[in-house]
Amino acid sequence: MWRVICFLSLSLPAFAQSGEWMFIDTTFGAEQYARIELKFEGEKITGKFGNLDVAGTLRNDRVELETRRADGTVVTKRTGTLSGGEMRGDGTRDSSPLTWTARRFADKPAERQTHRFEPKEFHRYFSSTIPPALRIFPGDSVESWSVDAGGTDAQGVRRSAGGNPLTGPFYIEGAMPGDALVVRFTRIRLNRNTAFSGARVTASALNAGYFAQQQNVPGFNSEWTLDVPACVSRDAKPTEKLKNYEVPLRPMLGCVGVAPPQQLSMLAGYLGSFGGNMDFNQVVEGSTLYLPVFHPGALLFVGDGHAAQGDGELTGNALETSMDWTLTVDVIRGLPIQNPRLENADYWMASGIANSLPEAVQAATTNLSQFLEEQYKLNANEIGIVLGTAIRYDVAELVDPLVHVVARIEKRALSHVGK
Amino acid sequence: MWRVICFLSLSLPAFAQSGEWMFIDTTFGAEQYARIELKFEGEKITGKFGNLDVAGTLRNDRVELETRRADGTVVTKRTGTLSGGEMRGDGTRDSSPLTWTARRFADKPAERQTHRFEPKEFHRYFSSTIPPALRIFPGDSVESWSVDAGGTDAQGVRRSAGGNPLTGPFYIEGAMPGDALVVRFTRIRLNRNTAFSGARVTASALNAGYFAQQQNVPGFNSEWTLDVPACVSRDAKPTEKLKNYEVPLRPMLGCVGVAPPQQLSMLAGYLGSFGGNMDFNQVVEGSTLYLPVFHPGALLFVGDGHAAQGDGELTGNALETSMDWTLTVDVIRGLPIQNPRLENADYWMASGIANSLPEAVQAATTNLSQFLEEQYKLNANEIGIVLGTAIRYDVAELVDPLVHVVARIEKRALSHVGK
Amino acid sequence: MWRVICFLSLSLPAFAQSGEWMFIDTTFGAEQYARIELKFEGEKITGKFGNLDVAGTLRNDRVELETRRADGTVVTKRTGTLSGGEMRGDGTRDSSPLTWTARRFADKPAERQTHRFEPKEFHRYFSSTIPPALRIFPGDSVESWSVDAGGTDAQGVRRSAGGNPLTGPFYIEGAMPGDALVVRFTRIRLNRNTAFSGARVTASALNAGYFAQQQNVPGFNSEWTLDVPACVSRDAKPTEKLKNYEVPLRPMLGCVGVAPPQQLSMLAGYLGSFGGNMDFNQVVEGSTLYLPVFHPGALLFVGDGHAAQGDGELTGNALETSMDWTLTVDVIRGLPIQNPRLENADYWMASGIANSLPEAVQAATTNLSQFLEEQYKLNANEIGIVLGTAIRYDVAELVDPLVHVVARIEKRALSHVGK
Amino acid sequence: MWRVICFLSLSLPAFAQSGEWMFIDTTFGAEQYARIELKFEGEKITGKFGNLDVAGTLRNDRVELETRRADGTVVTKRTGTLSGGEMRGDGTRDSSPLTWTARRFADKPAERQTHRFEPKEFHRYFSSTIPPALRIFPGDSVESWSVDAGGTDAQGVRRSAGGNPLTGPFYIEGAMPGDALVVRFTRIRLNRNTAFSGARVTASALNAGYFAQQQNVPGFNSEWTLDVPACVSRDAKPTEKLKNYEVPLRPMLGCVGVAPPQQLSMLAGYLGSFGGNMDFNQVVEGSTLYLPVFHPGALLFVGDGHAAQGDGELTGNALETSMDWTLTVDVIRGLPIQNPRLENADYWMASGIANSLPEAVQAATTNLSQFLEEQYKLNANEIGIVLGTAIRYDVAELVDPLVHVVARIEKRALSHVGK
Repeated sequence: MWRVICFLSLSLPAFAQSGEWMFIDTTFGAEQYARIELKFEGEKITGKFGNLDVAGTLRNDRVELETRRADGTVVTKRTGTLSGGEMRGDGTRDSSPLTWTARRFADKPAERQTHRFEPKEFHRYFSSTIPPALRIFPGDSVESWSVDAGGTDAQGVRRSAGGNPLTGPFYIEGAMPGDALVVRFTRIRLNRNTAFSGARVTASALNAGYFAQQQNVPGFNSEWTLDVPACVSRDAKPTEKLKNYEVPLRPMLGCVGVAPPQQLSMLAGYLGSFGGNMDFNQVVEGSTLYLPVFHPGALLFVGDGHAAQGDGELTGNALETSMDWTLTVDVIRGLPIQNPRLENADYWMASGIANSLPEAVQAATTNLSQFLEEQYKLNANEIGIVLGTAIRYDVAELVDPLVHVVARIEKRALSHVGK
Repeated sequence: MWRVICFLSLSLPAFAQSGEWMFIDTTFGAEQYARIELKFEGEKITGKFGNLDVAGTLRNDRVELETRRADGTVVTKRTGTLSGGEMRGDGTRDSSPLTWTARRFADKPAERQTHRFEPKEFHRYFSSTIPPALRIFPGDSVESWSVDAGGTDAQGVRRSAGGNPLTGPFYIEGAMPGDALVVRFTRIRLNRNTAFSGARVTASALNAGYFAQQQNVPGFNSEWTLDVPACVSRDAKPTEKLKNYEVPLRPMLGCVGVAPPQQLSMLAGYLGSFGGNMDFNQVVEGSTLYLPVFHPGALLFVGDGHAAQGDGELTGNALETSMDWTLTVDVIRGLPIQNPRLENADYWMASGIANSLPEAVQAATTNLSQFLEEQYKLNANEIGIVLGTAIRYDVAELVDPLVHVVARIEKRALSHVGK
Repeated sequence: MWRVICFLSLSLPAFAQSGEWMFIDTTFGAEQYARIELKFEGEKITGKFGNLDVAGTLRNDRVELETRRADGTVVTKRTGTLSGGEMRGDGTRDSSPLTWTARRFADKPAERQTHRFEPKEFHRYFSSTIPPALRIFPGDSVESWSVDAGGTDAQGVRRSAGGNPLTGPFYIEGAMPGDALVVRFTRIRLNRNTAFSGARVTASALNAGYFAQQQNVPGFNSEWTLDVPACVSRDAKPTEKLKNYEVPLRPMLGCVGVAPPQQLSMLAGYLGSFGGNMDFNQVVEGSTLYLPVFHPGALLFVGDGHAAQGDGELTGNALETSMDWTLTVDVIRGLPIQNPRLENADYWMASGIANSLPEAVQAATTNLSQFLEEQYKLNANEIGIVLGTAIRYDVAELVDPLVHVVARIEKRALSHVGK
Repeated sequence: MWRVICFLSLSLPAFAQSGEWMFIDTTFGAEQYARIELKFEGEKITGKFGNLDVAGTLRNDRVELETRRADGTVVTKRTGTLSGGEMRGDGTRDSSPLTWTARRFADKPAERQTHRFEPKEFHRYFSSTIPPALRIFPGDSVESWSVDAGGTDAQGVRRSAGGNPLTGPFYIEGAMPGDALVVRFTRIRLNRNTAFSGARVTASALNAGYFAQQQNVPGFNSEWTLDVPACVSRDAKPTEKLKNYEVPLRPMLGCVGVAPPQQLSMLAGYLGSFGGNMDFNQVVEGSTLYLPVFHPGALLFVGDGHAAQGDGELTGNALETSMDWTLTVDVIRGLPIQNPRLENADYWMASGIANSLPEAVQAATTNLSQFLEEQYKLNANEIGIVLGTAIRYDVAELVDPLVHVVARIEKRALSHVGK
């Protein structure tokens, strides 16, 4: 048997090694990622990385690689060894020292798969430092569930400390920084008949003087009964005024996010360009979310089901409940979006997640403008004409550490715009 | 005959004088208004003003009047003369000197009237210093028209300098500070086939860095053709990309406002609690607007027709055009709303007009909360439950001197809330 | 004698008429102002207005005048009559009709004058619609006084309704739109020993939750005793904790402003590019204020004395009191500053008056940057170097309708920058 | 000898164990910390934790402990074992399961120590997940140094990736959540003669339109020469205009912070209640900083030296350089400040670090109000009187992920306020 192995490791690799490699360079502890297509022919290695030429040699297990600009100047120099399908070594980027590893991306199976995933633990952070719970491929689906924002599951069992505990993370093979991760929600369904909410409008949404006058009613109930067959929810112990008040059920996911940049650990209540606790009431069954990718595999986290939610999530909690869901992932290579986008049958929606409402409106409008630039190649005045007549804004969320505004446009309005 | 006359002038007044009087007190040049119901019996005058008792005498044409608190302390003392149906004199409020006038409110005709009003001049300010162009009664309608934001009419004739020239003002008999003016738009129709717009998204709606990169295209056209039969508008000289781009016509009025408080003169491009240049794309035919009243007669101004407008009026100009419209007014006494409200078949909408987006969201949510308090007597937690599940926000306008956000709630959601 | 008169009116005018004229054009009710130097030679009139050539004729009392661009295209055409030293007529600007008047600027006396001005009435608006109370020339001084914010004078006599009643307006001969008005405060002195203040930090300066917890103490005193000889003020009826609390006197003027653009009437509590209720605690004796001019004569208003004020005027009222002051005015031609500037012995200060703090910081930094561009011709990077190392910010005021932030730089830091 | 040991471990512990213990409870992965004084007498253990009574037994190495409210209801139940000076076990809090550990705080040495600390690695995150580099006691001093914001040391050697690499963290024995950490900067000194800065005012500090017009000058230099003897810095290759421009040296530390709450990892460019990249130009030699403590030992990080900095750090980088510094730490027990405070000879300063300028001003004013409440027991109106007359604001920083405003008050103004 050893001969076969020997054969494989010495000769076949020349072909098997050709293809896309994931490079991770580390300089003073900071990592940089790259996807580079390499061709191994005899001892020669060649490739391209953006505008850079990659060239080098593999002699026995010794690797030497350089990247150069079109003008011939050297950007990186690497030496190292190839072993067990992984290259590893050190070198320089410009004049700084680096260490590097590189390995082939996993091969995609012939068939798309649906993974049934039973979460065993729940995470209270979005972070690249959390190991993947499941590795999946673009095109695959995950059928799973999440606990409510307080950590309780469909059976009413406390499974985690509170703060939007998250299911995942899912590692999507091949996703790399600079790509967009596509998450299509094919199913978002309630799995119990209770929810809880807040019962006081947040100070940030009321005039300070008016807020100061408002008094909480002692013992006021904000537990809800979800009547799934009738598709409505009701306050479980309503006051006289609210005894007939009904809220249509519209199950959504408050938290969908990837690992944020670098080694940041952000609370599961946080949000940003990575998505996260976006609390947008259009993230419902049938919608498709686009997120930037900051780390190999993206690392997708999901949680914080809401049975229904008004704009802004004004009371700090929507109708918080556990949720069953199925999602299908995909990767769009080389689409470096700067904030999340969402699509449904009727609208394209562009998120602006920022420190303040003015900045969130700016980020959302910029995101939608960039979408029109990318997809339709419109110039600044064409964008002005289209957005001036057809933009709509939603205030997704006002109560989390950052605010979230969404700019949207009807697909119908875009249907007559030239590409 | 003289006896009859004599009879009328000596005896009838005792009855004719009884009724509601409009008092205007002036202290150091600042005016205060009050609606006071007075009863004239023999020489005695009695009445009520809020919690205050009014008492006095009319001897020949000499009037003496005092208002007192329940505890008997005097608030105002007035002496004066009655002549030509008007009382006039001086006195004191607490220890400050005042001059005063008072006259009966005009009698309302038996029938509601529709006034056809042809504007002769157009005003570029909202101000109580502009004399009424027409006096109407609650229940009356006005059928009129307005020039476009640049001052041009339906025939393409320049009629005014630009800056949202306004038709009006209309004096609504009986409207007094502390009342709400109701303006029902029964008809808002286009009257020509051209409009103009901006063609660049405002800096305030884009990231500063993105805005700095955007370049205007020299000669870019932002004139529009309004195809009223087809109910769409098109760029009059479109680029290749936009040659099939159509905007559904949805005629609205950008400016509807009353005279602002005191003797302020605000440009017709300004907005505030008095309404004004609100630029909200739901002020369409079939909607009803509620405005606070700051002066006797309210003084209603109307203008700035838009053939269509996206949220935020992002390019500074919507599809600006002249407009025909018919409106019906009414007055709700003693409803001191602090910001405009709007109603259509499906929604109650509450404006927040403020210096910045965070403050506008606060003002809008407060306005809608106050609506629920007033109309449904909800407590702070009941308001939390209702708004937390059912509020929706619109960003009406981002380009004027103040920003305008609207909080709305479906009438259907409120239909099961106890009153 | 009549011959002499005749001589004067027929022959001398040819010379006397030559000089600077103030033109006022009215188009659809909107006014435009221009200062134009005209030369009358025989029947010929020639002149320059910016880049435009002015040419025409005076035959008897008939005037004809045209302005043309360098390429010969006509901008305005005017016809009219000269009578009593004033020209008046109609014409066109591009294709729009206009009416016009023009008159010579008043001749400046040989000597600078100091005007003792006793105010008879006080204005509660900044507005160009208020007639001048006094006409003065650049270089002249005015010695006068103002009531406190509530309208009370040095003798404790109520002289006006409240709301920062203003002394003035002073018409400065020769000041025209596009110029800067210079106001040097040579004397700002207390004239009584009492003041009043607020006693509660404004909601806009506190966290909403903290503000909601704060309780007013019933009967808390916020009257002050001004101990002018000792140069301190003390709460007139202090609590135990504050019985030794002293505030150093630093008399300043809260309101200094010119008439705002167009026919706006802004309350005396308002502020903006025209100055107004700026409430900046550096407007003290020895400082010099620069204001933009929007109307002929500028129309300067002064009031709202403060015995002392912390940053932000946090309690809504500083130590409000009446004040004696002397100011000297000057005019810098063709310096179209966009926001006020202030100078003292040590600093150049640039105001940012805007809707919100972020915008006020932007306006202040832009104003200071423009100052460096104008005065030192620095480029964007040189400005970056200077402001990055030497800028200081003050939060002047947080409680008025707009907020006021000041960016300042030490004169010492600029002393080594090349001009 | 073994007897002695035996004696110590069996008998003395009864006394040695009495004292303060640090408890760490873990519930569903979330940690809670408490400092509890326990008394071991025979088998009995008693203590107090806030209002709660602690009682239990130690039999051999078996521990049982309960905490109860004054009304006798049980809050926590714990069982476990004592071994090697540490207790450890499980239990419940209310009905939730927990695991717990507890150990005695380290004994403080008799003498204050000065630790010379040579950093070997530099951290680019503020995080409780980074192990302490040095453990010190309240009263101790650390003499050390930091690289510049780009990672370069006094010798010009690159030591780390950029992004404000940090020296530390220092674990301060005895510091616990709810305490305030005191950091006194006894020495902050330059250790090389070069620095670098930005050369463009940030977009967030300029009007968008003005920013869009500004052009960078190609090749503009923003390297600086630090002339330490003369106490000034100069652009190393200045333009003609700036060739004599000098900036007084005022060495400060941009980054001083503790580990943020929970397991957050925040970039070293981030700031918040934990301090961090505060970029406040008053953090100079002779100042004393107060920070909240979120984790046992606080974990203090220091870096980002600036040779000088204007307000706001407008160009994104101040005069960035490496720095030598000595600091002395202390702990104030039970002072749960919510934002950093700073003290120098003349002022008390209270930080407001928040998402936007309005919120930062609110946070700073609230912080200073709370200081007056805590230290002087002032009521809301007394605070109004003091801050209304004596507050000053600084805009510390405008370019980092959050903005930083400081409210300060002169110690002299407070010297006559009753405590």
